[in-house]
Amino acid sequence: MLTLYFAPGASSMAPHIALHEVGAPFDARPLSFRKEENRTPEYLALNPTGQVPTLVIDGRPLTEVAAILFYLARRYPEARLLPGDPEDQAHAISWMSFIAATVHPARRQGLDHAGRIYALADRRLGLRDWAVGNRYSIADIHLFRLFWRFFNSLKPPAEEFPNLVAHFQRMMQRPAVQRTLQAEASVGYDLPA
Amino acid sequence: MLTLYFAPGASSMAPHIALHEVGAPFDARPLSFRKEENRTPEYLALNPTGQVPTLVIDGRPLTEVAAILFYLARRYPEARLLPGDPEDQAHAISWMSFIAATVHPARRQGLDHAGRIYALADRRLGLRDWAVGNRYSIADIHLFRLFWRFFNSLKPPAEEFPNLVAHFQRMMQRPAVQRTLQAEASVGYDLPA
Repeated sequence: MLTLYFAPGASSMAPHIALHEVGAPFDARPLSFRKEENRTPEYLALNPTGQVPTLVIDGRPLTEVAAILFYLARRYPEARLLPGDPEDQAHAISWMSFIAATVHPARRQGLDHAGRIYALADRRLGLRDWAVGNRYSIADIHLFRLFWRFFNSLKPPAEEFPNLVAHFQRMMQRPAVQRTLQAEASVGYDLPA
Repeated sequence: MLTLYFAPGASSMAPHIALHEVGAPFDARPLSFRKEENRTPEYLALNPTGQVPTLVIDGRPLTEVAAILFYLARRYPEARLLPGDPEDQAHAISWMSFIAATVHPARRQGLDHAGRIYALADRRLGLRDWAVGNRYSIADIHLFRLFWRFFNSLKPPAEEFPNLVAHFQRMMQRPAVQRTLQAEASVGYDLPA
């Protein structure tokens, strides 16, 4: 039994997409940051940082986007969300670590700084279709969520990030992405700035 | 052929320890931040962020601490640095993501804020000997490097972090940790504040 705690539009969108990609049944539990539903004793017992996402697996909580994506990819190998080669797997983890530690916090430091960091990500992606090993993977899901938020909130000039924009458009064609965006929008986005 | 680019005392200490744990031959290339050796065109071609570590594998660069630790654990399974169960592997990645995205940046925000974040890490570790599945893993190596730096630079009261201090002492007994500390100290610590 899988339960995903998420906030519409937040980083939890990435594991939400992955759950739709693997086609696993799951219980979706939206939390409102504005109503501080992520600060209740019940939720803090699952995730003491008060952040989303948390995936509860048969009662056991797993936190952090990269970890939940990795777990879903390993548990549902038929969805092919992680390359088989250990060096390629490490590159997927490298992208996710770069996204969580460098790209994610950049937004809070304003458009100029964020633009420089996204330009690094754009060059790292380059002309390839997908982040790792020429195949769709969990790294693409994580990258998409960050760029989706940056693009929609800070409205940067698209021509400065040609590779990320092309990647974004490829991602938007995936049924799992469309289903997730519809599901989260129907709850209602409710994010801090 | 493995080459590790590192700065003595920096986050690159974690993969440096892992290389000593697995016993693989490697070429150690120290970089000085003060002399801006991490901003040369040659190094930026390997790692466009200018950060350390970078592990070069037969000419191919791999960046980010979590990714290099994962790669070494997968490539040298006999060293048993990663649990075999996918959910436990995900918990190791969860720890490393929490460390890179939440614990690592906390130090820059002063002792009070850093103390609150390390207190979270202390509670997350709890009374267990090792971070994941009751067995030494790459998550312990990453956690050790962060606490080593916090403890030595900001000098927090040890009694506020009893579990992290006990973990630190267990780590200090490992020959691979001692060898790495000696190797890095012999080059000379040269870190930004």
